[in-house]
Formats: sequence, structure tokens, C-alpha cells
Amino acid sequence: MKNFTFQNTTKLIFGRGTIAKLPQEIPAGAKLMVTFGGGSVKKNGVYDQMTQALAGREFIEFWGIEPNPRVETLRRAINLGKEQGVDYLLAVGGGSVADATKLIASSIRNAADPWDIVLNGNLLGEMLPMGTVMTLPATGSEMNSGAVISNDATGEKFAFYSQNPQFSILDPETTFSLPDEQIAYGICDTFVHVMEQYMTTAGQSPLMDRWAEGVLLTLIETAPKIHANKHDYNAMADYMLAATMGLNGFIALGVSQDWATHMIGHELTALEGISHGQTLAIILPALLQVMKAQKLDKLVQYGERVWGIVDGTKAERADFAIARTEEFFRSLGLATRLCELNVGSETIDEIVHRFTTRGTVLGEGRNIDAKKVAEILRLCRA
Amino acid sequence: MKNFTFQNTTKLIFGRGTIAKLPQEIPAGAKLMVTFGGGSVKKNGVYDQMTQALAGREFIEFWGIEPNPRVETLRRAINLGKEQGVDYLLAVGGGSVADATKLIASSIRNAADPWDIVLNGNLLGEMLPMGTVMTLPATGSEMNSGAVISNDATGEKFAFYSQNPQFSILDPETTFSLPDEQIAYGICDTFVHVMEQYMTTAGQSPLMDRWAEGVLLTLIETAPKIHANKHDYNAMADYMLAATMGLNGFIALGVSQDWATHMIGHELTALEGISHGQTLAIILPALLQVMKAQKLDKLVQYGERVWGIVDGTKAERADFAIARTEEFFRSLGLATRLCELNVGSETIDEIVHRFTTRGTVLGEGRNIDAKKVAEILRLCRA
Repeated sequence: MKNFTFQNTTKLIFGRGTIAKLPQEIPAGAKLMVTFGGGSVKKNGVYDQMTQALAGREFIEFWGIEPNPRVETLRRAINLGKEQGVDYLLAVGGGSVADATKLIASSIRNAADPWDIVLNGNLLGEMLPMGTVMTLPATGSEMNSGAVISNDATGEKFAFYSQNPQFSILDPETTFSLPDEQIAYGICDTFVHVMEQYMTTAGQSPLMDRWAEGVLLTLIETAPKIHANKHDYNAMADYMLAATMGLNGFIALGVSQDWATHMIGHELTALEGISHGQTLAIILPALLQVMKAQKLDKLVQYGERVWGIVDGTKAERADFAIARTEEFFRSLGLATRLCELNVGSETIDEIVHRFTTRGTVLGEGRNIDAKKVAEILRLCRA
Repeated sequence: MKNFTFQNTTKLIFGRGTIAKLPQEIPAGAKLMVTFGGGSVKKNGVYDQMTQALAGREFIEFWGIEPNPRVETLRRAINLGKEQGVDYLLAVGGGSVADATKLIASSIRNAADPWDIVLNGNLLGEMLPMGTVMTLPATGSEMNSGAVISNDATGEKFAFYSQNPQFSILDPETTFSLPDEQIAYGICDTFVHVMEQYMTTAGQSPLMDRWAEGVLLTLIETAPKIHANKHDYNAMADYMLAATMGLNGFIALGVSQDWATHMIGHELTALEGISHGQTLAIILPALLQVMKAQKLDKLVQYGERVWGIVDGTKAERADFAIARTEEFFRSLGLATRLCELNVGSETIDEIVHRFTTRGTVLGEGRNIDAKKVAEILRLCRA
């Protein structure tokens, strides 16, 4: 096991009716800004629950944070927050709203341009406190410090790290009205978050292996229940908890991590506007195929424990495990090949060009260079 | 899944050489008291590492916290802390030292007698900040708010809850010199902590089930490696991490809990001085037998996933799972029957008398009353 330091201070408030607990979590005198996406929370009752909970409190609303939140949009929120002297933020929505709010919270008391903060971190270190009401289980943003922000002007999409939310309220009932495709993206995103932390070198931590496999098995067992009835409270609660636990550090103690699938996927979103979860379903199977030799022992373990694959040579078992993974993504209704989305070779060339220019090397072995990225993208085009 | 609120703020610093990080965690101006057990840390090098890390800092030492720490001993530490104006505490040792230090930290700025704090909680609510350097994986006290304190005068032993340590340093190398029996007790204690949170009603949370089973499987796989070589760094690290994760709330999200084995075991320690881990090895198999009907579905799941038991009727599979549990405890070198420790019927009668007088009902169904306790104790006497 590798040495590690772990701390996750977020207070998780989980279950039916928990939005009513908001006033206990936000200081009474706070100058509050509440941030939202496109308005689905007005249709599903979450906005009403929130305003009822905060009755008698004053707050500013900022609407219109898009999926893959753009720094251009967030500059408006930041300026509003600066003008109004905001000192507490509440994100109400999915991972994009939470991610965006982390950048807003990092920028209001900061002279730096928010895109510089994304690229270089919050150099002043002052971040306003924030909480979330999470309505779309996927990114894990409700219980970690990470955020992913896009830049329209440059066609870029990057992750940055700030601070955890002080609290996050997760009521599975708020997910009942999610569109099917968003649920599919969210399940796939969670699955791949876990794979990024698990599908690396074998034998680093038996406990972390079991916990990662536990999240994967929970998703595999829960997806058909949700497909059958997305008003099944326990199924949505199981998925929601899995999404949070999949990216809050609990399964990453003392083990190496990969994240190449995410880094390549971000480029597909930046250039082609493909939904994040959808990009992962396309990249991961090809990446596992290209990196099979390096990940062989772990692929065999994954195949056996997650998919019950016990016959064949190691290479055959690994191939079968990769095939089962792709089948799972297809069972969610997702595409798993670039050709299905009409992505052509010029996009692949541009992504390879970007990785070549940056000189980035990805993966747990820091050996996925631009050449390997090209190999992966060509394989997932077929 | 049940509604829940979860927060665990402890910073975990894990791995080789991490005691050197102490000065980064304890404020430079703190009036520090360091608490210890009987002196093993002077033999295994931990004391030297600690004093080197804190070179140039002043601190008071309090020695002599015993296993099953007695409130009589802790009153002396509390008086010393009050006299010296202590405002930060560092526990160096095993779970007993950490538990004791939680009571000291809760009492120094408190007029109440510490035993009243154990019985009623810290009514004033002010607890001094504390950290730990943990040298014996077992109680999970390094990452939770609980503590168990004994009272010599009354022959009682009770749990109380205060606050989490701000940080805990866990270096697996500090465990290399532990006596075999303490390792056995610690593995059993961790195993039963997990069972208290897992072996209840089936079907509450598939993820929590997998995670609990993951800790149990890790202990079962790691115990023989430790038996073969307790200087095996990875095996000791796996055990140490399992002990912390077994009782820090991570496997208890949204599920009911039992804790009857612990409550009955505490009485055996209070009256007969039997080590905590040893009491659990005796009580748990008998408790599972007596409560078999209520726990049947979960016992069958446990048998299949943890012990690979797939044949037989449900009742047969449950019996076999209980037998495998008892065998595992025996493989650690522990007794599993009261007669092996010459505990007679007068002790059983006294324990039953105590539960009768208190009117306590235990277990996830709040249906283990004094009569059931008698049944359990008579079964584990045989």
C-alpha cells in the first residue's frame, strides 16, 4: 500500500425530505447566492422545497448554468456575487451546477480571472463556503473538491481542485423526474470514476479493491431496477449513494489512479459537445484493450469478481471482461463507438495534436502519450 | 435505505515514516499533553520518533493508561491537565489510550466528574482538540467519536461519544512489535465491529453490504499472512486500514445496527477482566445462534459471499456460516466458550441481573432482553 493522507469534511445529509434541513446548515446571517441550471428544479418541486425551507431568508438567485459549465457564464455569476457581497453559496442541481459553484466560490474574493484559477488553482486560497442540494447522481462533486470547467473561447475543458462543500443534501426523490439519458450518463460516469481508481496495478490494497468492486456490482445490479422503474426509491437511493461514494476518496486510499479515460473524454466533449458520460462509454473499452498487457492481472480479477468470468487464459478472460463492460454500457442505451456519433478522423487528429503539443502523459504508469491516445481513439472509432 | 447524516472530519495520515508529520498537525503554540499506555512505545521506537518530530516543542507526558482505561486513572490526568492549562492532547498508543484521551479532552474544561460525562455525555460540549498516533489497529477510535471507559469502583464499563480526533497518524511499522495475542484480539474486534453494522436486516443497502463484506474478506485473507510474518508491511497495513474503516461510519450509511455482542462483552470485561476482543469471540457465535431466525437472510448472504457456502437449506447454511465464524476466531488462537476461561454461572447470573435491573433491550430489533442475554450466555458457556 502507498502512503496517503485522507480527509473529507463534507457533511452528507441523505434521504427523503432532507431539503427541509437547509436552514440548519446555512448560517442565518449569510449573504447567500443560490445557483441553478436550466430550470428543471422548478418543474420537479425542488425549487419549491428549497424556498419553503429558506422562508424568511434573503438570497440572490443565479440561473442558467449549463451542462459542462462555461467560464463565460460563470464570469457573470462571479460579478453578481462581487457586486452583492455574497459570502455563502448554495448549488441546487446536478454535478455541473456544483462544479460551477466551486469556481464561483473560489473567484468572488479573488482578483484573478476564473479561467486562470482553473488553469493554476486558487492562488489566493480564499474560497467562500458552499453547500449543495444534489439532484443528479453522477459526478461525486457533492463530496469532493474537484470541478470541471469548459472554455468556449478556446474550446478547452479542464479539471481544477478547490474545497469540498460544507454539506450536501441528497434526497433520492429529487431524481425521479430525471430524463432516462441523464440517468444512463450518470451510471456510466460513476462506473468509470470507480474504474479510474481501481483498474490499475493489481495487489495494492485488498480492501480498496473490494470496495471498488462493491460500487461496480451495486451499479450493475441497480441499473435494471432503475430501467424498470425510476420511481423505485431504494434503487435510486442505491445509485445516488454509489455515485457519491464512487468519487469521494473512500475507494482511493493508498492506491494508484489512472484517469486517462476522463482526460481523453474531456477533449471529445470540448470539441464535439458529446455528453461527458457518453464519452466515457466510448473511450474506456478501447483504452482497456490498448492497455491490456499493463492492466492484465487487474482485468482478470475484475472479470472474475465483477462479471463471474473464471474460464479461459488470462488474455481471454481480460477480453471477455472488456466485452462485458462495453455490453453494460450498451445496456444503458449508450453508444460505445465514435462512428455511431459521426465523429470523424479530423477530430481524432485534433485531439492527438493537442496531447502532442501539451506533452501530457496519462494513466497510472504515466505512459499513455499522444501515440497511445491516437491508438485508443482509432480503436473506438471502428 | 434509511435516512442518514454522515460526517467524519478526521484527517488520516497513513504509512511509513508519517510520525514525522506531527509538527504540521499540532499548532505551534499549543499547551500539549501527550498520553501513553504502559511503556511499550519506549521499546518499539515510537516514543523516540515522536520526540524527534516534536523537537523544540514543550509538552507534558501522562503515562499509565491501562487496557480498558479506568476513570480512576483518568481523573489524575484530568487534574494534571487542569493544573497545567493544557489545550491540546495527543494520544500515542492503542485504542485504550485514544479512548481515554477523548474523556480527558472532554473533562479538562469541565466542572463535571468524568464518570458523569461517560454516563450523560459532555453537557457543556467543550472538548479540547486532540490527535492520535495509533499503534494497535482494533478499536477504530482513531477515526470516530466513541470511547469505552471502565469504573473500578462500580465494576462498570460503558461507551460514550464526544468528538473525532482532528488527525490520526497510522504507521503500520509501529505494529510489528505487537504481541500475537493483541493482534488476535484486534482482528477479532475489527471483525465484530463490522458484524455489528452488517449482520442485521437484509436488503437495506447493497453497497454497504458489499463494503462490510469487503472488510470481513480482507481480515480473513490477511490474518494468515500476519500469522506467518507480522513484519509483513503490506499485511499489517491492510489490517490497520481495515480496522479504521471498520468503525469510522463508512460502512454504516443508511443501515440499522446491532451492538448487542459488544454490550454483553463489556460486562464480561467489567466483571472478569477478560480482554475485549476475547469477549467478542465468545459472545458473537452464540448470539448469532440465538438470533438466527431474525437474521436468517443476512446469515445466508454472509455465508455465501464471505465463506462461499452455497449448499443446504437456509437454516443449514446459517449454521455453517456461524460455525465458520467460530472457526475463524479459533484460528486466531482465541477461546470461543466461557468454560475455556473458567467463567462460572455466578458471573452469568450477575450479568443477567444487571440487564434485568437496567431494563435494557439490545440489538437491531430492540428485542434482546435479559432473558435472551441469559440464553446467549448459557449457550456460550457450553
